[in-house]
Amino acid sequence: MTGLRTDLYELRMAASYLHRDMTEHATFSLFVRRLPHRRGFLVAAGLAEALAFLESFAFNDAELGYLRDVVGFDQPALTALAGLRFTGDVWAVPEGRVVFADEPLLEVTAPIAEAQLVETGVLNLITFHTTVATKAARCRLAAGGAQLIDFAFRRTHGIEAGAGVARASAIAGFAATSDVEAAMRYGIAPSGTMAHSYVEAFPDERAAFRAFAADFPTNPIFLVDTYDTPAGVRAAVDVVTELGLTGPVGVRLDSGDLGALARQARAILDDAGLRRARIFASGSLDENVIAGLVAQGAPIDGYGVGTKMGVSYDAPSLDSAYKLVAYGDRPVLKLSPGKATLPAAKQVFRDPTGAAGDVVGLRDEPPPGGREPLLVPVMRGGRRLDPADPAEAVRAARGRFDADLTRLPEPARRLADPTPLTATVSPALAALHGRVAARLGGGPTGRP
Amino acid sequence: MTGLRTDLYELRMAASYLHRDMTEHATFSLFVRRLPHRRGFLVAAGLAEALAFLESFAFNDAELGYLRDVVGFDQPALTALAGLRFTGDVWAVPEGRVVFADEPLLEVTAPIAEAQLVETGVLNLITFHTTVATKAARCRLAAGGAQLIDFAFRRTHGIEAGAGVARASAIAGFAATSDVEAAMRYGIAPSGTMAHSYVEAFPDERAAFRAFAADFPTNPIFLVDTYDTPAGVRAAVDVVTELGLTGPVGVRLDSGDLGALARQARAILDDAGLRRARIFASGSLDENVIAGLVAQGAPIDGYGVGTKMGVSYDAPSLDSAYKLVAYGDRPVLKLSPGKATLPAAKQVFRDPTGAAGDVVGLRDEPPPGGREPLLVPVMRGGRRLDPADPAEAVRAARGRFDADLTRLPEPARRLADPTPLTATVSPALAALHGRVAARLGGGPTGRP
Repeated sequence: MTGLRTDLYELRMAASYLHRDMTEHATFSLFVRRLPHRRGFLVAAGLAEALAFLESFAFNDAELGYLRDVVGFDQPALTALAGLRFTGDVWAVPEGRVVFADEPLLEVTAPIAEAQLVETGVLNLITFHTTVATKAARCRLAAGGAQLIDFAFRRTHGIEAGAGVARASAIAGFAATSDVEAAMRYGIAPSGTMAHSYVEAFPDERAAFRAFAADFPTNPIFLVDTYDTPAGVRAAVDVVTELGLTGPVGVRLDSGDLGALARQARAILDDAGLRRARIFASGSLDENVIAGLVAQGAPIDGYGVGTKMGVSYDAPSLDSAYKLVAYGDRPVLKLSPGKATLPAAKQVFRDPTGAAGDVVGLRDEPPPGGREPLLVPVMRGGRRLDPADPAEAVRAARGRFDADLTRLPEPARRLADPTPLTATVSPALAALHGRVAARLGGGPTGRP
Repeated sequence: MTGLRTDLYELRMAASYLHRDMTEHATFSLFVRRLPHRRGFLVAAGLAEALAFLESFAFNDAELGYLRDVVGFDQPALTALAGLRFTGDVWAVPEGRVVFADEPLLEVTAPIAEAQLVETGVLNLITFHTTVATKAARCRLAAGGAQLIDFAFRRTHGIEAGAGVARASAIAGFAATSDVEAAMRYGIAPSGTMAHSYVEAFPDERAAFRAFAADFPTNPIFLVDTYDTPAGVRAAVDVVTELGLTGPVGVRLDSGDLGALARQARAILDDAGLRRARIFASGSLDENVIAGLVAQGAPIDGYGVGTKMGVSYDAPSLDSAYKLVAYGDRPVLKLSPGKATLPAAKQVFRDPTGAAGDVVGLRDEPPPGGREPLLVPVMRGGRRLDPADPAEAVRAARGRFDADLTRLPEPARRLADPTPLTATVSPALAALHGRVAARLGGGPTGRP
């Protein structure tokens, strides 16, 4: 019942195709044209959400009534839409794989009206999740081995976006999320203890810590910066001692000079014999702040990363596109300046060492010497080929990212001024592009 | 059934409060600490969504089972949560009002566990909608009188975010949205005609335009940049002439030098006698690009604004906070560096001419000379006081923004280097802050 979750022009085009019996299969290719500044790679994500969207795509009576009464669709169009489901095939790069510009992340082949109608939803979901997974991956590169926790929920773009951010950051290696519903949905560890308001609701900090540790004696994390951070750490130490807590404990710093305060906190904790107490930091963190703290050797065991990651603050979207590349037996392209496209269903071939850039070729051409094809069939006839449970899908995606990350060359990994790998076009695809462009009168210029 | 749509720490704090019979009423205040660069004001938005969230807040059995089995909550906590609903009162600035930093947009008063549990959802929704409405308002300031259409859906942060962007941009004065479900939900005009893929699915551009105009003779907009823009405009002219269309028609430019192409298109259309044909532009637009086109006198009648508005690309979130300001009969605050807060329930008093900055005072103090209080009661005992239908709420909010915009001084309105109005603190609030800070040992320093 998500049929109206699309742009109006998709519906008009679909109605026109159906009216004209244009029912041949079309192939659309989803790719990112250019990486944003400060991105040396992307982490493919959002596929499971996109496939769920495709499986549920349908119009209910209220939606059809709206199209009739407000948009002015005629009865033949409404009848065609009423029975429409997504019946197509999808090839895609599995979630968690590292990808680059100009590489198809997903290709849809379906009767053209169906393939067109789902554009908005599929493009939305893949773009959003890939944007956030990529930002989260940069935090992971910055953090060294420290633990990362998603704290973004309060400032994601809506409540459902919070769950998306939890999922995308888990794929990139975040260990936990504060978003409890997302934790439940995707099998991610939930994380969180207390806010400043809790401390303020008690007569003093010590009373608050005592109450919290009594109620949650397993691994309490004390938020120590409500009034004065070193005093807060000492209050936490006193409460741990007073209650005789012997399990894991920790403190969280949420403001001020986190590096200096972490060193002070470490000294206070160590002096009190709490050498295993952990120190967490949060508050406007991003990969650059984390890298700075790591570089200065701040004794921080874990980072709660919120808004900057959850909205991918410095690059909150991607220059993604979902473009028609074939209709019927005819490869197509467009020649719009800066937005030209390559024709036909494609494949991405990866050098197994990870050192050389990918080759983008035709889906049916043989892999060039020893290269691995990245796109695999994920949906056939509108049904997922591998409907893994949500938690298992996240775990598998995280495993793929772990593996790809180890092979990613340093220039693409580095946080500042990274150099992404550049995809090249196979001779077979280049030749086809030249023929199609020439037919359209644009000449084989521009790309490739 | 949204009880888990919160951060884990809210649940732990709530459980602790309930366990200790800490049931006194708390007041939390939601405000924005600092405006982002290039923002001279904010447009308050998201209140209707936040109130709907509050009304539906509850835990279902699966959620309680998760808290028991995975999070380890005990039976008394689960029993308390099972019966928990939001029963509090809310004061808020109505949607569409212009607001500034350090002004409460919303205040919640409820038993502390309830008020704490809803923090994440309320903060999320108000922050997201206000972020986007503010960005959309800048596009409106740039566009002069030209029509603005929300094209963001394909790159918002998830599908639900698309509806939020459609709603927030409508509040700021956008005339239509491409998101059909959002248009239906909020009574916004839906807009959209064809994509490049439609043109490519036909043997040539002319055939595509002919088919489209035959199927949608009422106000077709021809996308003319798939291959060569001036040729595309001429093809559109030919089809309009050939089919004898006499109603409104238009062309859309989606790439290239939009100003130059718009002038060429205008000349071609005028030469053909189509002086009333409209020209629309789209493609990576934001308020700066639009202002540049307007400044050069580009003959563009409407702008489709997508990603840059929909993710508020240059400032995709706000430094918002939801802070405890009173518990029981005790006003509270925190002293954390850079994150200090002002105590007690508040009111914002506005100069009716709009020229002077707002005064932030105590909720119960009388308005200083002729000033208008901005916060009004919107929920009592967990029920909305004015459950307007969704379309009416958007219309009313847009009216409020229209009115506030006319009173906004030029330094706050301008796109480049704006100067926001600065709120001052009333003597009564300043005195209270001094007393509470002194009690907590921080001294009446910092703010104010």
